[in-house]
Order: sequence, then C-alpha cells, then structure tokens
Amino acid sequence: MIPSNDVFLDFVCPYAWRGVELAQVLRQAGEQTFRLRHFSLVQGNHPDNAGQPAPVWWLTDQPGDAGERFQKSSLLAFLAAQAAARQGEEQGWDFTLALFRAVHEEKKPLDEDAVMAAAGAARLDLQQFADDRADDDGLRAILRADLAEAAEIGVFGAPTFVLPGGEAAYYRFENLTRELGTARQWWHLYGEILHSGAGIATVKRAKNRPAPKAAQKQLAQQTA
Amino acid sequence: MIPSNDVFLDFVCPYAWRGVELAQVLRQAGEQTFRLRHFSLVQGNHPDNAGQPAPVWWLTDQPGDAGERFQKSSLLAFLAAQAAARQGEEQGWDFTLALFRAVHEEKKPLDEDAVMAAAGAARLDLQQFADDRADDDGLRAILRADLAEAAEIGVFGAPTFVLPGGEAAYYRFENLTRELGTARQWWHLYGEILHSGAGIATVKRAKNRPAPKAAQKQLAQQTA
Repeated sequence: MIPSNDVFLDFVCPYAWRGVELAQVLRQAGEQTFRLRHFSLVQGNHPDNAGQPAPVWWLTDQPGDAGERFQKSSLLAFLAAQAAARQGEEQGWDFTLALFRAVHEEKKPLDEDAVMAAAGAARLDLQQFADDRADDDGLRAILRADLAEAAEIGVFGAPTFVLPGGEAAYYRFENLTRELGTARQWWHLYGEILHSGAGIATVKRAKNRPAPKAAQKQLAQQTA
Repeated sequence: MIPSNDVFLDFVCPYAWRGVELAQVLRQAGEQTFRLRHFSLVQGNHPDNAGQPAPVWWLTDQPGDAGERFQKSSLLAFLAAQAAARQGEEQGWDFTLALFRAVHEEKKPLDEDAVMAAAGAARLDLQQFADDRADDDGLRAILRADLAEAAEIGVFGAPTFVLPGGEAAYYRFENLTRELGTARQWWHLYGEILHSGAGIATVKRAKNRPAPKAAQKQLAQQTA
C-alpha cells in the first residue's frame, strides 16, 4: 500500500482549491494517494485562539446558523463534505471538487444551493446524503478530529500537505493545473523543498513582487 | 557581465547570516554574483510602520544611541558595513561575514568590539575605516537608499534574495553550508521555486513540524 499524503483544506480558500485539484490529478493517475482533511481558517484565525497553546474556540462547538459569513459557510461545507464522504472515497472527492469549483471557478456563494448542486454533480445518492447530513453530531465528531489534528500539527493555512514522513507545510500557489506532467512537477518541487538538506522553513515572496499568475488563455488550455 | 543577484540582510538575523554564507560560496566559485544590501527588521517591524504604504519611521533618522538593543546594534552594524565596503567589494564581504560569524557562530554581542574585531579579521585599513565611519551622513544616505529599495520591493524578512529578473522572496533555512555542491543545490532550488509555473507564493512549514536542523557533527564536516 502506498503511504498516503494528507491535504488539509478549507472550502473558503482558493489556494486550497488549487491544491486539491493538484492532488486529484496525481491520485487519478495512481501516482500518489491523498486523504482529504479539514482545517478551518475561521477557527485558526479566531481572536480567542490567538496565543493559545491549543484552540479554546472550536468551529464544531458553534451552531450552524451562528457567526459571520465565512464561519457559517465553512461549517456548512465541512459537514456536507463529511456526509458525502460516507458514500465512498470517490464520492467524497467528487463532491469536494464540485463544491470548490462552484465557489472559486464559477464564483458562486458557498451556501446550501452550492452544496446541493455539488451533490448532484458528484452523483450522490441524495436520500442517503440527506440522511447522513442529519447525523449532525456524528459529522461534527469527525470534523472535530480533523481540526484537532490540524491544531496539533500547527496548520495555519490551506492547503497544507502532510507527507508520509510527517513533513508538513502550507503550499500556496497561484495557478491551476489539471495536467499530469505539470502536476507531477509542482508536487515533486514541494517534496524537494521539504526534504532539502538546507532545512527550508519558509520561502515567501516579497510583498510587492507577487508570484506571477498564468494568463487565462494558458489556463484554459491546461484545463481543457 | 553576469547579471547580479541582491541579498538583503540584517546583522541581527541568523537566517540572513546563513544566506550570505551561501552567497559567498557561489560568488567565490564565480558561479553567481551578489550585491550585499541592507534591510532593517527593526524598521520593518516598527509599530509606526504597520499598515503604512511606505515607511514613516526610518532607522536612518534615529540617533546612534537611541532605541532598544536591536535598533542600536543593527544601525551600528549597517553603518560599519557601509564604511567597510568603501575599501572594496572583497573587504565589504569579508567584514560582513566576519561580523555575522562573531554574532551568530561565536555568539558574541553585536557591538563596537565585534565591529572592530571584524574589521581586523577582514584586514581593513583601520585608519581608513575610522575616517569612513566618521562620514555618518554619507553612510546613512547609502543605507537609506537600501532601506528604501527594500521597502519598495516589500521585503519583510532577511535574507531576501532578488534575482536579476526581479523575483524576490524571503528564503529561510536552518542549516549552514560552505560547500560548493551543496550551496549550488540550495540556490538552484530557490530559483526553481521562484520560476515554477505554479506561481508559488509561499511555502511555509506547519508550526509544530519545523524544518529539520542538521546534526552539529554534520555541520562541522561541512564547514571544515
């Protein structure tokens, strides 16, 4: 069995979307395996958690209708994705990517309509999906385990990829690929950075020299 | 003429030290050229500059004996390094590295004693060095130009390397090398990250999974 990588994601983050697209290309080609894990930016950046050794404010302790927009929408999406994953690994991935694409590619709101559209796109059994979503306590327990592990690792942004050896870093990139050769290069580079004898802790662009974004035309070709 | 890289450094930062050591290996081998540039962490992190589009608090506007320890020591070191560089490029590098090593390898305070010891180690003409250091206004003007360019680029940490094409990023690594093959690999990887079609903006380790530090024995072998 191939040791699995983890990818910690948050549906509100476009970088997480591109990270999961990258992972999907590699897993579909059978080159890598990834587990979809959940990390909450709202929880990670919550003022009550600032400077705390462990979170005191948990997204999973909040009512579904509480808080500001990102809190509500991310909790909705996480729980729906946990429910989708109960129908199988592929269903979980298909739902996750459909929801990501709706929000970050089609620029739709992250809401109940988007969740149901993603469930349709992923060809979920909709009755089963509704039943699984009704198990709010059970879904929150699984989400809580992900959030707790993210906190233990010290995840602070999404996507954060965790390699089988335990190395973990936020990998933020501007461009989208669904092409295997390109995905392989970008993933290989991530591993090189984390395994370099330099002991690389951070590479981060200077504020006024941002990473170049590929032209839309080029993206369209890559994603065609 | 080989287009030059810039390395923005601050003497108070051990990561900047390792970055300049890396640059020195490559320039001595004739593989790359680097200009030593100054970026001030005290200025960059000064509360008066938070959220400002351009700095309002400048290190170069402060008296030499003002402020807290890092402010005083970094201003002292920057101006001394500017004076040393007036004796020639090699003298500037030798002084810079001697001062970095005193502080971060030998763990000495960054003070006037360390400056004079570094001047000796770099075999500066000490009378000339004293005369050049007396030109406080002239040295501050050159330092100011570096700090202004760092601000314009959006440098926020040291070392930040600027490539001839204008790409610029903070490159933080835990280990020291003075070995050419290793230095070449670490530098090549930096270029790969900045030139990747992914448009990599950030790679940063999760907080509780820090970059591995090489064992001291291994370091001793590398630096022997």
